[in-house]
Amino acid sequence: MADEIAPPANQLAAVSLGNDGSTVQKAQFSNRVLIRTILDRPDGGAKLAGQKIRIGGWVKTGREQGKGAFAFLEVNDGSCPANLQVMVDSSLYDLSKLVATGTCVTVDGVLKVPPEGKGTKQRIELSVVKVIDVGIVDATKYPLPKTKLTLEFLRDVLHLRSRTNSISAVARIRNALAFATHSFFQEHSFLYIHTPIITTSDCEGAGEMFQATTLINYTERLEQDLIDNPPPTEADVEAARLIVKERGDVVAKLKAAKASKEEITAAVAELKIAKESFAHIEERSKLKPGLPKKDGNVDYSKDFFGRQAFLTVSGQLQVETYACALSSVYTFGPTFRAENSHTSRHLAEFWMVEPEIAFADLEDDMNCAEAYVKYMCKWLLDKCRDDMELMAKNFDSGCIDRLELVESTPFGRITYTEAIELLEEAVAKGKEFDNKVEWGIDLASEHERYLTEVLFQKPLIVYNYPKGIKAFYMRLNDDEKTVAAMDVLVPKVGELIGGSQREERYDVIKKRIEEMGLPIEPYEWYLDLRRYGTVKHCGFGLGFERMILFATGIDNIRDVIPFPRYPGKADL
Amino acid sequence: MADEIAPPANQLAAVSLGNDGSTVQKAQFSNRVLIRTILDRPDGGAKLAGQKIRIGGWVKTGREQGKGAFAFLEVNDGSCPANLQVMVDSSLYDLSKLVATGTCVTVDGVLKVPPEGKGTKQRIELSVVKVIDVGIVDATKYPLPKTKLTLEFLRDVLHLRSRTNSISAVARIRNALAFATHSFFQEHSFLYIHTPIITTSDCEGAGEMFQATTLINYTERLEQDLIDNPPPTEADVEAARLIVKERGDVVAKLKAAKASKEEITAAVAELKIAKESFAHIEERSKLKPGLPKKDGNVDYSKDFFGRQAFLTVSGQLQVETYACALSSVYTFGPTFRAENSHTSRHLAEFWMVEPEIAFADLEDDMNCAEAYVKYMCKWLLDKCRDDMELMAKNFDSGCIDRLELVESTPFGRITYTEAIELLEEAVAKGKEFDNKVEWGIDLASEHERYLTEVLFQKPLIVYNYPKGIKAFYMRLNDDEKTVAAMDVLVPKVGELIGGSQREERYDVIKKRIEEMGLPIEPYEWYLDLRRYGTVKHCGFGLGFERMILFATGIDNIRDVIPFPRYPGKADL
Repeated sequence: MADEIAPPANQLAAVSLGNDGSTVQKAQFSNRVLIRTILDRPDGGAKLAGQKIRIGGWVKTGREQGKGAFAFLEVNDGSCPANLQVMVDSSLYDLSKLVATGTCVTVDGVLKVPPEGKGTKQRIELSVVKVIDVGIVDATKYPLPKTKLTLEFLRDVLHLRSRTNSISAVARIRNALAFATHSFFQEHSFLYIHTPIITTSDCEGAGEMFQATTLINYTERLEQDLIDNPPPTEADVEAARLIVKERGDVVAKLKAAKASKEEITAAVAELKIAKESFAHIEERSKLKPGLPKKDGNVDYSKDFFGRQAFLTVSGQLQVETYACALSSVYTFGPTFRAENSHTSRHLAEFWMVEPEIAFADLEDDMNCAEAYVKYMCKWLLDKCRDDMELMAKNFDSGCIDRLELVESTPFGRITYTEAIELLEEAVAKGKEFDNKVEWGIDLASEHERYLTEVLFQKPLIVYNYPKGIKAFYMRLNDDEKTVAAMDVLVPKVGELIGGSQREERYDVIKKRIEEMGLPIEPYEWYLDLRRYGTVKHCGFGLGFERMILFATGIDNIRDVIPFPRYPGKADL
Repeated sequence: MADEIAPPANQLAAVSLGNDGSTVQKAQFSNRVLIRTILDRPDGGAKLAGQKIRIGGWVKTGREQGKGAFAFLEVNDGSCPANLQVMVDSSLYDLSKLVATGTCVTVDGVLKVPPEGKGTKQRIELSVVKVIDVGIVDATKYPLPKTKLTLEFLRDVLHLRSRTNSISAVARIRNALAFATHSFFQEHSFLYIHTPIITTSDCEGAGEMFQATTLINYTERLEQDLIDNPPPTEADVEAARLIVKERGDVVAKLKAAKASKEEITAAVAELKIAKESFAHIEERSKLKPGLPKKDGNVDYSKDFFGRQAFLTVSGQLQVETYACALSSVYTFGPTFRAENSHTSRHLAEFWMVEPEIAFADLEDDMNCAEAYVKYMCKWLLDKCRDDMELMAKNFDSGCIDRLELVESTPFGRITYTEAIELLEEAVAKGKEFDNKVEWGIDLASEHERYLTEVLFQKPLIVYNYPKGIKAFYMRLNDDEKTVAAMDVLVPKVGELIGGSQREERYDVIKKRIEEMGLPIEPYEWYLDLRRYGTVKHCGFGLGFERMILFATGIDNIRDVIPFPRYPGKADL
């Protein structure tokens, strides 16, 4: 049997040399220590002094000192917002190649408590004994100059912006919220269901959809083929038709003349070939450049799925098929809108969290939404305190207070009708809105923010909306005017969550589909969920990027997703 | 301030009546007890006898007994594979409406130990005191007949197949593996990065891509517009041109005649209107039906992103931008191939897990891959034992043993060259393969499975592949013939993971791109990662559905994803 590689030898494992015997753990699958495991300790790492370790990271700032005798590098490896101070002696390496911002260094060194009185906040620094690897940077060409960079500027440097303090902190916060989401739902026995990205269902016409298609490619290949092999002319078709006729005549004559079986068989074979040739020529003669058409419409039978397919706008309808079998489920994935929207709140590709709960009603839905949002806030406060402090410093000084408020305060809950009354009272007292307030309107963002930011000053759930402004699948209330819908409004963002109890009554939902002028046929599978073993159920959708905006206080949604897509922009 | 809804009153909370004081917990966000919390106990639930609870679920089988005096229902709520036996007295409800398979019931009842000697395995059953809700089923119309259903049949009933034992067990196993994936990487300080679905990068031409587009829609709207408002004729254009000329003449004359400023200004204004009208008419006259073209090619400037965009085939290149800043990252999301592949191993939409580790080499990569696969196996053994037993019973009697083997045994590790030698030895001893064995070939599935299933009988990592059969970004070894690539092969499935150390040397990777005849320009951003602060790094991709096939022993990949997409099929 062939030799096998031995498990990795840990040449430079941390040894117990700390003053109190504490040891840093090497990262697994990488022969180094994460900087966070050094700095994120009550003592700021001071008790680790004396340990010999390897670290790797990128230089945030570097400076030569002592007339070029040594250099100080502030090194960050992305494991936490803080940098480790690294000291390199000029005898070890060409210092001019280490100090440029963005330089990647892997070094072995000994942790030391820096001399007092240097005015630094560092409780520990690394004194390098060996430089292992260096990825240099030509500072004159580096696309991220050392000056303060705006988020807007960084949107044109997507592939490098993760190296900035702000974007890397957002990445850690986003990661934390994603894992908090899974943890919350798993703890509550929800099953994660992967709903499809490519769909042939239209979720209540929620918006313009992207097509997922191979038809343009098909058309281009066809057009190239028509250039390379021009299609038969009418004369070609006529000639082929003539040959079929002639050979048919030959067969007829032979039969009439009672020719031998062999002769007839041979002539019939010739006729068959002529017929096939004619069919092929006739079919090719019909080929035209451009998208394939049938009865004036695009012919999707030539597309990959044999029908028109889209990128999903919501996994809700599909995930309901699992809720109506496994009770508590959720989906968490990308969704799409092909809307020509250039605002700071909209993306063409964004992530949604959509739980769906069987044997549950609107109140259960509100309880779940509130518990989930609180859970995420607590998670960030517990696990991302340093990144949140960076957000407070750079973007929104109130963001930590807001998380604490939301985590600790019961959400307000009022009906839509009550919300309208409150807004009308405000108008009566002189408050001016751009959009008119009256029962039946869809609340505008200004109304939502006024309710949550000014009137309640905390998250607010508004429920029981007029049926006319909501989707067909929301459960009709007994008043027959409102549906069991609910929106969670939060300060800073407005609508964070939209949900509803679903209409479980077959007759009612069928009537609602018809009332709204939608065709029944595409929803037959959805109606089956009500025809067979229907169950009271509810669910909601949370816009994941909106949650990050809410948490961080960042203004533009393009800065809280790694690769933002919007009209005219899909870099990388 | 408006009244707020009080927190939900738990009308039927479980009370401590168990023999040993044990109590079942009500599910949160749903006023009922999960069946798993009753049955998944060492005592099979027996000690809970006496507790009054509410449950909800779907009837698997139901039968009236005692001449219609009562009915036994096997009820499943998806929380576990086991059913709770539920007894309903005919005084409580029309039993004929409860017994059909698929019926949904919500009932209050008292847990009781069933009388002995009934020949059942039940340790506990629910004696109903009140029927709360029923979702009936007309058994004559229900699309899932009570007979044994094949997985193939179920693929045409996607919206209901989650109600079957097999598909619901797969859903729980899939959920478990997804959460195990997140748990593994989070425990090891990897950050979850959402790479884009819509991309303008082509990952090494990994395969045919779907386009994400609004251009067909644009074309259809344009064609309709040309019907509704026929474009201007040449005569129209000429007429408009003439008006411009005339008005130009008027202006010239007025100027020559030194007319008043007012007169000239008025004439110039008229001229401007004529010019705008002409420009508009001329532009419209150029509109043609069909996809917009420019220089013979499709003009993507009219598409949503202003350029051609695709559905991603891999998040690797994009996630590398985060690895080269945050060190240890991973992506877990859907990926796409528009290949006309009708096999049991390929989907057009499937999920991939792609970690990427900075400051790490090929050996770290193999260590990570092995640890991750072992972790998932252990997770299933610990947390999905009952579902795995169902898989062993229905699909693959060896699947649990296989998980145990993989979890406990170090993976084999051999070079590609050694693998070829072993295969050549086998051929010399009489083993026949369809594909020829010689150094330089891409290992075929039959080779991979022979190595892992016959020769090693355990997972096997093959590394250092010939550069000619691997992607440009894989690190060139010092022999200049092989690259630092590795594949993890497992019994039953063959290739489960493919990975590599990435080429971090700017000059080398640039040369490799050129050697392979790829254009440099689209990869400039990727090259920037090597130009500025380059870092040794590695990563791999695991096909998530393949992992489920491996774990469950199910044969067809279409049965382990909730909504399979393949040529001609994209239901729901």
